[in-house]
Amino acid sequence: MKIYDWPTGPYPARVRIALAEKQMLSRIKFVQINLWKGEHKTADFRTKNYSGTVPILELDDGTFLAECTAITVYLDTLDGTPTLTGRTPREKGVIQMMTKRAEIEMLDAISIYFHHATPGLGPKVELYQNREWGLYQRDKALRGMHYFDALLKKQPFIAGENFSMADIAVIGGFIFAAVVKLPIPQECSALLAWYARMQERPSVRDQLAIVSPQH
Amino acid sequence: MKIYDWPTGPYPARVRIALAEKQMLSRIKFVQINLWKGEHKTADFRTKNYSGTVPILELDDGTFLAECTAITVYLDTLDGTPTLTGRTPREKGVIQMMTKRAEIEMLDAISIYFHHATPGLGPKVELYQNREWGLYQRDKALRGMHYFDALLKKQPFIAGENFSMADIAVIGGFIFAAVVKLPIPQECSALLAWYARMQERPSVRDQLAIVSPQH
Ligand SMILES: N[C@@H](CCC(=O)N[C@@H](CS)C(=O)NCC(=O)O)C(=O)O
Ligand SMILES: N[C@@H](CCC(=O)N[C@@H](CS)C(=O)NCC(=O)O)C(=O)O
Repeated sequence: MKIYDWPTGPYPARVRIALAEKQMLSRIKFVQINLWKGEHKTADFRTKNYSGTVPILELDDGTFLAECTAITVYLDTLDGTPTLTGRTPREKGVIQMMTKRAEIEMLDAISIYFHHATPGLGPKVELYQNREWGLYQRDKALRGMHYFDALLKKQPFIAGENFSMADIAVIGGFIFAAVVKLPIPQECSALLAWYARMQERPSVRDQLAIVSPQH
Repeated sequence: MKIYDWPTGPYPARVRIALAEKQMLSRIKFVQINLWKGEHKTADFRTKNYSGTVPILELDDGTFLAECTAITVYLDTLDGTPTLTGRTPREKGVIQMMTKRAEIEMLDAISIYFHHATPGLGPKVELYQNREWGLYQRDKALRGMHYFDALLKKQPFIAGENFSMADIAVIGGFIFAAVVKLPIPQECSALLAWYARMQERPSVRDQLAIVSPQH
């Protein structure tokens, strides 16, 4: 299998953490797409992923899978023993919900801030920016951090009692927060303690070293 | 099980279509949340779904499941025979991807247009609007329709050879397009033909009758 990757990007890091958790990293050939050069916005790239984002997983049969959640579900169910996306219907549902919530309320919000209210990937790639919307999303992400903080005061992981794809999505949020230099509010002590715990996992620690060597 | 519902809303309709496909509608008690009165933005509602949207499925054990995709995955896997969210890892991945793509490129884009560049739910509910962003998303949705049209020239359903949750997400897009009076471009003939086929399904036809009696 092949992954169209950008080593320092928060979203591709989500899939690499999932691969590390599943001990599948060695089964993947990585192809770098240079976001700063806009290689993800070419017509050719968009035939692989219409939305023009990385990561994409290319299966051996030529199928292109985009979207971190879709890729993670695929990889996690491949061996018949899902560990990241839930075993029971209830676990699957809660993990899907919390992953989406992590995106809407934190990770995607920070991404919009980056692309719209900072120079983002530079003027050649960011053809349209809406600064006010970017700032609005930054503030939404800060509220989202407080939400996840309150949640983690009551349970050890984002989707409940076990590490899952939803934790990885919030880790993606932390990675993007570091990229845009958005500090996690100090009063979010449960969220910060959870992140410290996350970094004890080899899968997370190894990928953080790639994303931001100074982490 | 209980669903916090808004009968004419495009997103709740997605879950009701899924329930009809699974012949599970009679197992659900529906509770109406009046969006025009902002009942989904109260502090109490947000303890059920922090993101403040319907639908929410409340399980018998008191768990609240928000997000159409999460709810659909739960309902579809409950009986051990998924028909909407994929059986094999590849099917699951493709359906997840295409559902998300339907949201990003069409349904959510139209929703943002509605909430930001039209009166939306009215001034008491729409506390912040960004008209330029709304118009930008409307144009994105129109491009998305052309993408799905091109796709449906090559395959019968949004995720390939079978009806799935991804078709239901695009149906949600059509429902929202009707709400905001955004016409589907006439040249999107494969997309329009697909929608005509979709309306032959009792699950879709019955729910369209509820969403927009004049449909
Ligand atoms: N919804 C997508 C988002 C992926 C995404 O935004 N990836 C970033 C890389 S970190 C990207 O490609 N950004 C480029 C751009 O938006 O121009 C997913 O979950 O995979
Ligand atoms: N991502 C959510 C979106 C749900 C959504 O936007 N629902 C609409 C009802 S059709 C809503 O609650 N809108 C109210 C608002 O955004 O103020 C999902 O997939 O369930």
